[in-house]
Amino acid sequence: MGAIIAGMPATISFARGAPSLDIVDIEGLKAAAAAAFVADPGGTTAYGTAVGYVPLRTWIAERHEVPPEHVLVTNGSMQADAFLFDHLVAAGDAVVVEKPTYDRTLLGLKGRGAQIHPIELEADGISVDALRALCEGGVRPKLAHVIPNFQNPAGYTLSLEKRHALLGLAREYAFTVFEDDPYIAIRFAGEELPTMLELDGSRGNVVYASSFSKTVAPGVRVGYLVGSPELIKAIQLIATNTYIAPNMLAQSIVYRFCVDGGLERSIATVKQALAERVQLLTAALDRELPEAEYQAPEGGYFMWVTFPGGTDVDALFAAAGERGVVFVKGSDFVLEGGHNALRLAYSGVTADQIDEGVRRLADAYRSLAPVAA
Amino acid sequence: MGAIIAGMPATISFARGAPSLDIVDIEGLKAAAAAAFVADPGGTTAYGTAVGYVPLRTWIAERHEVPPEHVLVTNGSMQADAFLFDHLVAAGDAVVVEKPTYDRTLLGLKGRGAQIHPIELEADGISVDALRALCEGGVRPKLAHVIPNFQNPAGYTLSLEKRHALLGLAREYAFTVFEDDPYIAIRFAGEELPTMLELDGSRGNVVYASSFSKTVAPGVRVGYLVGSPELIKAIQLIATNTYIAPNMLAQSIVYRFCVDGGLERSIATVKQALAERVQLLTAALDRELPEAEYQAPEGGYFMWVTFPGGTDVDALFAAAGERGVVFVKGSDFVLEGGHNALRLAYSGVTADQIDEGVRRLADAYRSLAPVAA
Repeated sequence: MGAIIAGMPATISFARGAPSLDIVDIEGLKAAAAAAFVADPGGTTAYGTAVGYVPLRTWIAERHEVPPEHVLVTNGSMQADAFLFDHLVAAGDAVVVEKPTYDRTLLGLKGRGAQIHPIELEADGISVDALRALCEGGVRPKLAHVIPNFQNPAGYTLSLEKRHALLGLAREYAFTVFEDDPYIAIRFAGEELPTMLELDGSRGNVVYASSFSKTVAPGVRVGYLVGSPELIKAIQLIATNTYIAPNMLAQSIVYRFCVDGGLERSIATVKQALAERVQLLTAALDRELPEAEYQAPEGGYFMWVTFPGGTDVDALFAAAGERGVVFVKGSDFVLEGGHNALRLAYSGVTADQIDEGVRRLADAYRSLAPVAA
Repeated sequence: MGAIIAGMPATISFARGAPSLDIVDIEGLKAAAAAAFVADPGGTTAYGTAVGYVPLRTWIAERHEVPPEHVLVTNGSMQADAFLFDHLVAAGDAVVVEKPTYDRTLLGLKGRGAQIHPIELEADGISVDALRALCEGGVRPKLAHVIPNFQNPAGYTLSLEKRHALLGLAREYAFTVFEDDPYIAIRFAGEELPTMLELDGSRGNVVYASSFSKTVAPGVRVGYLVGSPELIKAIQLIATNTYIAPNMLAQSIVYRFCVDGGLERSIATVKQALAERVQLLTAALDRELPEAEYQAPEGGYFMWVTFPGGTDVDALFAAAGERGVVFVKGSDFVLEGGHNALRLAYSGVTADQIDEGVRRLADAYRSLAPVAA
């Protein structure tokens, strides 16, 4: 409850990976909720089981062209990650992550005592050469966590060539690829790529997670896993013992939203808005902050911005906060380093906030002591 | 997918602790869902935080006459149990449970390697004398798990005298009472008793859990914890790292259902139906199965039935199944023993199923080899 400073403009947040309310289909969700209670009052209000709301499980399975036994629907995909880590990762296990990667993934792995091996993320995805070198050096990863599309925090996408190469390594060194793919549906530029789950076929080297947070709304907390029936069965047991069943009410509403056409409409809305925001953001950065380097993302919520070596992003963060603009520091997404980088989330800022937000960021940057040449 | 046997009647289930659909207020929930999207579209669809949907948290805090910082709203109360156990129970810790108790509590504690000390449950609740003797014998419990009202599986209620005595022991031996109280609102006979949370005041010896599963519907998966702000803060951190936030959509709908009067209406419906079912069930048992001993519950979902010593409930379960009636065996609710007891759940059977169900059960009992006198 800080004091409100007179004349201080409202803070513009490039920090949170969440949609602004204008791109959430409130009316569609309201209609889906009403329809859910009419279509399946029992299934919508009963306990259900840990596999999730059965019609939604089946719908997801059809989208991924697998039998329903390959799918488990959870309370958001982070809960799915937690179950998966509980099942697959013991203290001391080697786990590969991208560098940088999602801060909560790092936290979840650290909490379980994993030996974390961060592998450099390049503009076309994780460095498969570096990962091969790690394996050749004797490390035997249990799991490689990869966000293939519009990575969080970098916005980069794993190329098709690297998808194949990564699967090859997974087969050779017998590790599981954890394909963490919440952003796949919100590609607004470039060509769709096959998932590693698809490319792997029935070999069982991939477990896949996604979510409705970015296509419907985060508050529905509906995510899911796709994997081998044996893995799904094991995770179902953990889920049963944790919460009996995930939220049937929310999953039934999401299901109605999907089958009644809401999902496709919502995805179209989100894509259009995000494409526009990236365009505005990159134009504003080019104009106001030519020192900032970035690769414009082809989808998703995030863009990674690096400043000249030596830039003190901690100081930039403080100066930006004073000027009413926030972001997440690059150092939050790595175990060490990341001090001249930051993540800009454009999902939660409306178009009219972007120019002003970047102006404030540029003003903050100019206020810092100059970087030694 | 078993074959349907011609002429086989539909199975009557006294097994599941869940409400029959006729006592779930589908229309009220549908209206609450519509109202939630109108009243708070942002809060209903955004991530929220791990404390739960803030208006619901505040509403619960007011009901329990504590500040909101004492409350955390979760995805069902079993998830709350899991967080609490993760926080408080390490491998080797002594934990007291009632004997018999909820099977999933036993499973959760076993999974964490707790030293489980089952203490006899009497018709007026856990044997405080036996618990005192345990402590005097040198055991130092970390936690005592107690279901005070209409216990699962027994249907018994902890007397006021024993509530005070238990709190006295908790203070003397410095353990936490985990008051697991999902059934409190559905008392249909006898006098309301104060919770141990209330009786404990600000001493911090009690952590309290309850749920909307029995008063609204289980599929909403909304439960909560009430405890000291320090404890709630610690559990909030675990919850954040597990799922960011619980289901905002479901919690916002439950909140609207509560404030728009649905909750009180629903509780009245549930109480009336359950009171009638207990009356029918006890009358049918008295008539068809006078060998069965029980204490009629004053609320809740369950009744514990014991048969003469030597009765083989495993055999009874099989014979009952053949006749189209199911229940849960007493042995499922204890670490050992319980072989001449069973749990009858009357929450999921409609009034017209009860007589027929008990007739089938009696028929199964008569089919068993007679118990040696």
